[in-house]
Amino acid sequence: MIIEIISIGDELLKGRIVNTNAAFLCSHLQKKGYAVSRQTTLSDQPELLKSGLKEAIARSDLVISTGGLGPTLDDRTREIAAEIYACDFHFDQKLADELLIRYPNRYDAVKDQARLPTKARIVLNRVGSAPGLFFSEKGKSLILMPGVPKEMEPMFLEQALPLIEKNWPLKEKKVISHLNFCLVYESLLDPHLRELSGRFPEVEAGIYPAHGHLSVLLLSSKADQLAAFEKEMRQRFGNYIYSSPSGRIEDALQDWFVKNKKKLAFAESCTGGTIASHATSIPGASDYFLGSFVVYSNEMKEQILGVSKQTLQTKGAVSEETVREMLEGVFKRTSADYAIAVSGIAGPTGGTAEKPVGTVWAAIGERGNPADVGKFMSFGSRQTIILSATNQLLGALWRKVEKGIPAFPFLPA
Amino acid sequence: MIIEIISIGDELLKGRIVNTNAAFLCSHLQKKGYAVSRQTTLSDQPELLKSGLKEAIARSDLVISTGGLGPTLDDRTREIAAEIYACDFHFDQKLADELLIRYPNRYDAVKDQARLPTKARIVLNRVGSAPGLFFSEKGKSLILMPGVPKEMEPMFLEQALPLIEKNWPLKEKKVISHLNFCLVYESLLDPHLRELSGRFPEVEAGIYPAHGHLSVLLLSSKADQLAAFEKEMRQRFGNYIYSSPSGRIEDALQDWFVKNKKKLAFAESCTGGTIASHATSIPGASDYFLGSFVVYSNEMKEQILGVSKQTLQTKGAVSEETVREMLEGVFKRTSADYAIAVSGIAGPTGGTAEKPVGTVWAAIGERGNPADVGKFMSFGSRQTIILSATNQLLGALWRKVEKGIPAFPFLPA
Repeated sequence: MIIEIISIGDELLKGRIVNTNAAFLCSHLQKKGYAVSRQTTLSDQPELLKSGLKEAIARSDLVISTGGLGPTLDDRTREIAAEIYACDFHFDQKLADELLIRYPNRYDAVKDQARLPTKARIVLNRVGSAPGLFFSEKGKSLILMPGVPKEMEPMFLEQALPLIEKNWPLKEKKVISHLNFCLVYESLLDPHLRELSGRFPEVEAGIYPAHGHLSVLLLSSKADQLAAFEKEMRQRFGNYIYSSPSGRIEDALQDWFVKNKKKLAFAESCTGGTIASHATSIPGASDYFLGSFVVYSNEMKEQILGVSKQTLQTKGAVSEETVREMLEGVFKRTSADYAIAVSGIAGPTGGTAEKPVGTVWAAIGERGNPADVGKFMSFGSRQTIILSATNQLLGALWRKVEKGIPAFPFLPA
Repeated sequence: MIIEIISIGDELLKGRIVNTNAAFLCSHLQKKGYAVSRQTTLSDQPELLKSGLKEAIARSDLVISTGGLGPTLDDRTREIAAEIYACDFHFDQKLADELLIRYPNRYDAVKDQARLPTKARIVLNRVGSAPGLFFSEKGKSLILMPGVPKEMEPMFLEQALPLIEKNWPLKEKKVISHLNFCLVYESLLDPHLRELSGRFPEVEAGIYPAHGHLSVLLLSSKADQLAAFEKEMRQRFGNYIYSSPSGRIEDALQDWFVKNKKKLAFAESCTGGTIASHATSIPGASDYFLGSFVVYSNEMKEQILGVSKQTLQTKGAVSEETVREMLEGVFKRTSADYAIAVSGIAGPTGGTAEKPVGTVWAAIGERGNPADVGKFMSFGSRQTIILSATNQLLGALWRKVEKGIPAFPFLPA
C-alpha cells in the first residue's frame, strides 16, 4: 500500500511555522506498520495545489492531507478536492445544526463549513468547526484534515487512523527494531552498521541522528537475522542504548526513576528551562520530577540556589565551581535524590577566546555522593546548542543511574 | 524563479524527527525575497529518491536538498545526483587533506567524503565532514547540503544563500507586511480579511495560525494598497498586534522589558519550563529575564515558593488561590518587576469533571499591584496545551505591559 502525506499552506513554504503535522502523521502510521512513501508541502495557490494533489493521488493508494480546510479565504482544499473527484457540493443540514449548537455566534462560518462535496464522507472534528473529509473512488482515496494540530491530532487518532486500519488491513508484517543511542554520534556507529549489514544482508538498517542522540532502525522479514544484528549492536554499544517507546531519553529516565522511587530536580542556566520542559513532556512526569530552578540571572543563582558571589565574580557563571554550587543548592532546597546543574554559553554572543560559544559546564550527582562534573562543547545555532546539551545531559544522567557509569566524559577517550 | 526544497531521509517519513530544516530554509529564503514553490520529503531508497529528485529538477530552476550526504550507508544522495547530472567521480586530494587535519582518526570516512562528482562544486562545511555540493547545468541547478541542522544552518547562511543571491539576483520586489496577533483565533479575523481583500484586490492576504497566536502576511506590488489594508487591520485589532522580527511574542516582550528596564520571572507548574525556554530562546534574554521556578511538584510549590499546604489541600494545585500564592512567592524571592504564575492540567490524564484536561489557572502581575488572575481552557494534545498556554500567557503579559489592558479574559466578551 502506498501512502503519501500532503501538507498544505503558504505558512509552511514561507517558513513561518515548522511542519509538526507531517511528523505526527508519519510516526503514528509507522507505529501501526504503515509506511509513508513521500511527504509534500504545497502552496495554497489553487493551480499549484491542484496539480500537486493530483500527482500524489496518481502515485498512491491513499493521500492524507492537512491544512486549507478552515473557513478562511486562503483555504481552498475542499473545492479542489471536489474538482479532482468531479463532484458537486450539497448543504449538510445535520452538520450545520450540530455546528450551530457549538458555535451559535458564527453563522456565516458554519454555513460555509456545512457545504460539502457530494462524494465525501465526514471525518468528525470534535475540537474545531472544519470537518475532515474522506474521498474514495476507483482505488484512489483521499483524507482531508484541518491543519491546526489541536484539531488534526485527535481527528487523526480517533477517526482517520481506525478508518485506515479498517480499509487497508496489513498483510505480512516485517519485524522492526528501534535502538536508541544517547551520546554517540553518527560516524562512530556507521562502520559497525556497514559491517553488520554485510553479514546480515536481509536486514535494512537506518541511522537517524538528532540533537545529541540518535536512533537506529532495523527492519527485516527474517526475525532471526534481525535478532542477531541487534544482539551484535547491543554487545558493542549496550552502555549507550536505552529503551523508550517514544525514542526519547526522558522516557527512559522516567522509567528508571519511577521504578526506583527516586526524585529528580534540575538547576538550569543556559538551557533556560528546556531540560525541565523535556522531562515534563512525558505524561506522568509528576511521579518523579520535582521541578527545576531556571536560574538564568546571576541574582537567582545567588539568592535562590546560594551560589557564592565570589565564585560568580572570580570563576564566572560558566565554570566548574558555579555548577557544583548550583547542584549543592538543589540538594539543599529540595528532597531530590538526583540532580543536574548546567551553565553554558548558548550564543550567538557572549563567547570569549577562553570560553567560546557552545562551552557548557555541568554537574550531575546523587545526594550524599561526590558529583560528576564536566565540560563539553556543543555546536550550531543557539537552539541547537540548547537542545544538544539537553539531550546529552539527560543521556549522561541515564547512563549514570541505569549503568553506573560516570557522567563525564560522554565517550571513552 | 522557481525554487523547490527536498528533504531526504526515512527518519522524516517515519516521523522519527520533525523537519525543522525545511522551515529554516523557507524562512531565510523568504526574508531575502525568494519564494519556495514546493517542499518534498523523499525516502533514502535510491529509486524513490532519484525519481523525486528528477521531478523537482524538471519543475524548477533551483532545487535545494538537505540530508543523505553523510558518510553512512543510507546516505546515497551524492551518487544519485551524479547519475542525474551524468558525471563520474574524482578524488579531491585538497579536500581530503583538509578533512584529515580536522578528523585525523577517521581516515575511511574522509576518503569517502573526498570522492566528489566531477560536475559539482564544493559548498564548504565548517562544522562537519560532509561537504555541500552545487550542480548547475542547462539552467537546472541543485544544491546538496547535509541534514544535521548544526552543519546545514551555517552552511546555508554563509555559503549557499550568498551563492543564490549572486546567481539569481531579484528583479521587481513586492512589498511584504507581517502582522503578528496574540490571543485571537483564525475565524475571528477571517471575515475582516475577506472584506478588506474585496476592497484592496491587489493585496494577497494569508493567515497563519499557530499555538495560541497567529500571523497575517500581506503581499502586494502596490505599496499604497498594502498600507491601506494594514492600517484598517491595525485600527480594528491594534491591541492584539505586536511587532517582532521573528514573529514570536517573546521577541516583542523582550523589546518592551529591555526598553523599560524591567525584570521578569515566572513560576511554572503545568508548562514545566516551557515559558522560560521560550523567553530564553531569544538572544539577549539575560538583559531582562531573571529566571523561572519550575515548581512541578507540590513539595516545590510549598517549600520554594511558599504556597500554603492548606491551599494545596483544600483548593488544589490548579486553582486561583494557588497561582496567586505562586505569584506572591516569585515577588518575595526575586527582584522581578513582573511575573507570571501558571498551574493547569496538561493531560492526557489527571482531568476531573470539575477541572477537565486543558484547564489552566494563571496569575499575571506587577510588583506592588493587585494581580490579574484568570482561568482559561486549552485543547489538544499535552504538547499543544502546553504550547498554547505558553503563547497565550506571554501574549496576555505583552498586552498588559504594552497596552495597559488587564490580562484576563484574553478577548472581550
